[in-house]
Amino acid sequence: MNKTVNTATILMHCDDQIGIVAKVTEFIQNNRGNILALDQHVDHEEGQFFMRIMWDLAEFAIPKDKIQDYFQTLIASAYNMQFKVYFSEDKPRMALFVSKMDHCLFDILARYQGREWNVEIPLVISNHEDLRSVVEQFGIPFYCFPITKDNKEAQEAKELELLEKYNITFVVLARYMQIISPEFISKYPNKIINIHHSFLPAFTGAKPYHAAYKRGVKIIGATSHYVTTDLDEGPIIEQDVTRITHRDTVDDLVLKGRDLEKIVLSRAINLHIQRKTLVYNNKTIVFS
Amino acid sequence: MNKTVNTATILMHCDDQIGIVAKVTEFIQNNRGNILALDQHVDHEEGQFFMRIMWDLAEFAIPKDKIQDYFQTLIASAYNMQFKVYFSEDKPRMALFVSKMDHCLFDILARYQGREWNVEIPLVISNHEDLRSVVEQFGIPFYCFPITKDNKEAQEAKELELLEKYNITFVVLARYMQIISPEFISKYPNKIINIHHSFLPAFTGAKPYHAAYKRGVKIIGATSHYVTTDLDEGPIIEQDVTRITHRDTVDDLVLKGRDLEKIVLSRAINLHIQRKTLVYNNKTIVFS
Amino acid sequence: MNKTVNTATILMHCDDQIGIVAKVTEFIQNNRGNILALDQHVDHEEGQFFMRIMWDLAEFAIPKDKIQDYFQTLIASAYNMQFKVYFSEDKPRMALFVSKMDHCLFDILARYQGREWNVEIPLVISNHEDLRSVVEQFGIPFYCFPITKDNKEAQEAKELELLEKYNITFVVLARYMQIISPEFISKYPNKIINIHHSFLPAFTGAKPYHAAYKRGVKIIGATSHYVTTDLDEGPIIEQDVTRITHRDTVDDLVLKGRDLEKIVLSRAINLHIQRKTLVYNNKTIVFS
Amino acid sequence: MNKTVNTATILMHCDDQIGIVAKVTEFIQNNRGNILALDQHVDHEEGQFFMRIMWDLAEFAIPKDKIQDYFQTLIASAYNMQFKVYFSEDKPRMALFVSKMDHCLFDILARYQGREWNVEIPLVISNHEDLRSVVEQFGIPFYCFPITKDNKEAQEAKELELLEKYNITFVVLARYMQIISPEFISKYPNKIINIHHSFLPAFTGAKPYHAAYKRGVKIIGATSHYVTTDLDEGPIIEQDVTRITHRDTVDDLVLKGRDLEKIVLSRAINLHIQRKTLVYNNKTIVFS
Repeated sequence: MNKTVNTATILMHCDDQIGIVAKVTEFIQNNRGNILALDQHVDHEEGQFFMRIMWDLAEFAIPKDKIQDYFQTLIASAYNMQFKVYFSEDKPRMALFVSKMDHCLFDILARYQGREWNVEIPLVISNHEDLRSVVEQFGIPFYCFPITKDNKEAQEAKELELLEKYNITFVVLARYMQIISPEFISKYPNKIINIHHSFLPAFTGAKPYHAAYKRGVKIIGATSHYVTTDLDEGPIIEQDVTRITHRDTVDDLVLKGRDLEKIVLSRAINLHIQRKTLVYNNKTIVFS
Repeated sequence: MNKTVNTATILMHCDDQIGIVAKVTEFIQNNRGNILALDQHVDHEEGQFFMRIMWDLAEFAIPKDKIQDYFQTLIASAYNMQFKVYFSEDKPRMALFVSKMDHCLFDILARYQGREWNVEIPLVISNHEDLRSVVEQFGIPFYCFPITKDNKEAQEAKELELLEKYNITFVVLARYMQIISPEFISKYPNKIINIHHSFLPAFTGAKPYHAAYKRGVKIIGATSHYVTTDLDEGPIIEQDVTRITHRDTVDDLVLKGRDLEKIVLSRAINLHIQRKTLVYNNKTIVFS
Repeated sequence: MNKTVNTATILMHCDDQIGIVAKVTEFIQNNRGNILALDQHVDHEEGQFFMRIMWDLAEFAIPKDKIQDYFQTLIASAYNMQFKVYFSEDKPRMALFVSKMDHCLFDILARYQGREWNVEIPLVISNHEDLRSVVEQFGIPFYCFPITKDNKEAQEAKELELLEKYNITFVVLARYMQIISPEFISKYPNKIINIHHSFLPAFTGAKPYHAAYKRGVKIIGATSHYVTTDLDEGPIIEQDVTRITHRDTVDDLVLKGRDLEKIVLSRAINLHIQRKTLVYNNKTIVFS
Repeated sequence: MNKTVNTATILMHCDDQIGIVAKVTEFIQNNRGNILALDQHVDHEEGQFFMRIMWDLAEFAIPKDKIQDYFQTLIASAYNMQFKVYFSEDKPRMALFVSKMDHCLFDILARYQGREWNVEIPLVISNHEDLRSVVEQFGIPFYCFPITKDNKEAQEAKELELLEKYNITFVVLARYMQIISPEFISKYPNKIINIHHSFLPAFTGAKPYHAAYKRGVKIIGATSHYVTTDLDEGPIIEQDVTRITHRDTVDDLVLKGRDLEKIVLSRAINLHIQRKTLVYNNKTIVFS
């Protein structure tokens, strides 16, 4: 997609009713919005309607700062619809959390430096000093908050303060080896993306590669999901797998897994940045 | 999908213009059609709009036999739109062409006997007698038309006669080892599905497994496409691949390829039966 | 591989020691055996050595019926080695167990009829009558043993009698919906192959597609494994996966899963027939 | 694998003859070499035998600098064998050639900085200045040799001088957008690794993503191969693919392809570093 096009995107859902698609598309097209993408989904079991629509703002009759209001009044209220408007001009602002492993970090920073994504990364936070030089090598501020049982609450408070200061809109845990507290999670609902180094729900918890080795699986995986208070149980955004054999030691799994982890996490981040994910009932709709 | 739901599906395309989605969805929803699937695509390079829409006919106000007419008058003419209406009640009727290899044939007939698809297979045609017993074992009429240089035109004429007699709507070449003449193809435009045993456009023509072996590729593929008069150049519907190694002989490639061929061909047939494919500019739109 | 070549294959394992490969290859090559395949593996964690070696018997100096004895005396006893000799002339004899679903059954019988495998399938056993006509359509005897809580022991006894009568060497559960008793399993250790319709160890037990749907995974899998007394916990032979989306209903998962199940089960059967699998410590070595 | 183990690896090939495996393994094991990996392959069509064997040098009786000589005298000469001995202590030395695209460069340098590979990268060479800062950010010398029709011979001569000065053992073209001259290639036979951004042999030459888009393929690929004087025709080391749809523009293919290119190139480099590749007849044997 041409990145210079100025677009609005709405993600919406409500009880399934006849006429919604017509109403929404009419609203945009009657106001001279050129629809660039439209994807809808009906979950017949739940009776829910979901839609993502993106249009070009160039000729759009309604001013940007009135769109939310007009859509609420003219469409959403009639259908009791949940929705959110996003603008391509407002870049999502990502905070990156890391510990000691650098493969996901490098993959993300390389894409960032190569301008692959429409995102800002104003800071990186870690509980260890190890990756400071890597981060600073990319010219990004690095903050270290070592975590112990005793200081966790206080340190997280400082982290949250920092996220607020930097206007962070979502958080990425790039092999951050700490469990985030429910209080922290509640500030960023469905806005914290984690990478788990297994094909969930297989091998939840610690040391999934050891568990996979012990079980003798022939394929390993990685899973990116939104973080909820249930560990490794949040809505899955993206997964991928790779073949292994009896020859692969745990160390080999770790190495092969690294390539999976970075690709799967980066794909999930990319979907989030493009506003293509919507969470409902602890599952994701991933719009095309 | 619940197969007892009575649905209509329209595949359409036209020059991209503002307002089409609103108009089409309004047409269906104002007439009490419950939209079950909607997928649209804009090819910005070609300036073309494509859409597939499927709705439940249970409450639909317009009688089934008037839908074509109403849609033409109320929608299509204004947009200079090409479209086609399909009904789930009207099962596509497939003619299967085979030669001597039985793997695709078995895969298709097993699905047919297991009622996996909404299709009728009234006959199988071959240029050899070899598979007669397999076909008849499934209770399907088998017709044999041996082809030589001299009799090709005459034999194809008989085949076409048979297809007409059986009201065939599309043809599947399940490793049928004869080139179909342009005259035959012109009777079933974008309605003849072939499986080619390579990852097209690599290894067109005869003996692709031998060519793949000789080139030393690490992955082989299979490609299902609509047949056009340019051999192996028709619009691709589906492809898939599998890994090979230096250990694999040509015979191994043939064996591994068989599993690919049958899966890829069956997926393509399934997409065709569900009216999810639309050909434009020698490429397919595959709706979701 | 040319199927008319007469070969012997030895699968062996023992504590890892220096000199084994040299000794074994010397034994074969000094007796004019042409080695066609050799694959060895050392599990350094367990200190175990594993090897599969296959050679052409055409010029082999030791008579076929003496090989077991000579190898034991000259090689195996010195290394305290477990081993087993197989001959290509002695076709494995497979008993197929099915219930009501026909997709794996069709896939296996089609390969059998097409002579894809070096195997005999002398009978099919089921707990239901549903698939009798399919099996008999392929000219194979079909036996039905309906299972209830009360008659299970007696019915299994009859099944085992039948397997003995037919000289069955291994059993394939092709979506057979009954749990095999420990007594039955103990008669065919690492010789009963099951297909489980999930990516084990995720979604063990009943209704894995429902569980996968509920969890919102983006990939589903199938797993073929040897049956042990721990349900779904036996040594994994082969796994594969396919992508799904939020659009896929449970019924869609079932349909997509069918193609996975049949391919994964058939690959596992093929490995077993070729004597390429060796079980150690509840894991498989799969030789190349 | 534990990287502190000191190993020797021999890659060998010769006409297939009885007794080679026994002789080679005996040579190593009689001299108290503990075999860590052995993989052999017979190409029956070509009548060629191939083998890779790696052993622990800790207790090995023959001094490191005599192994080549002893193996030649005691084994290789009898079988008219081509072979090469490698030691884990002697790290391969890679020269990286780049142009303007940074994704493969970043992926390789991140692995290098993270010590994922047993390799040295003493320098990066480019025909453009664009990536100087990226390379220097990783603390690696960067040399720029702009290439024109007129200066190509002279510039390549300078590059070769530099490679010699740095004792370079192999070259990686990480999206280097220049054709290497036959003279240059002849200095590094089967030691120049290229990444081509298509599934070869489909879409050779320039702009493969444009060609793939035009043809309407449903899967795109990337291919890593050794460079020969026939453009895009060298022995393939590794390939991989990813799915695309009608929605993907050429720009989307370029983006998706970047992830493929970097993974495929890095896998090929890893195989080369581990001495797992052997070229014969313009194809690779990739040992396990």
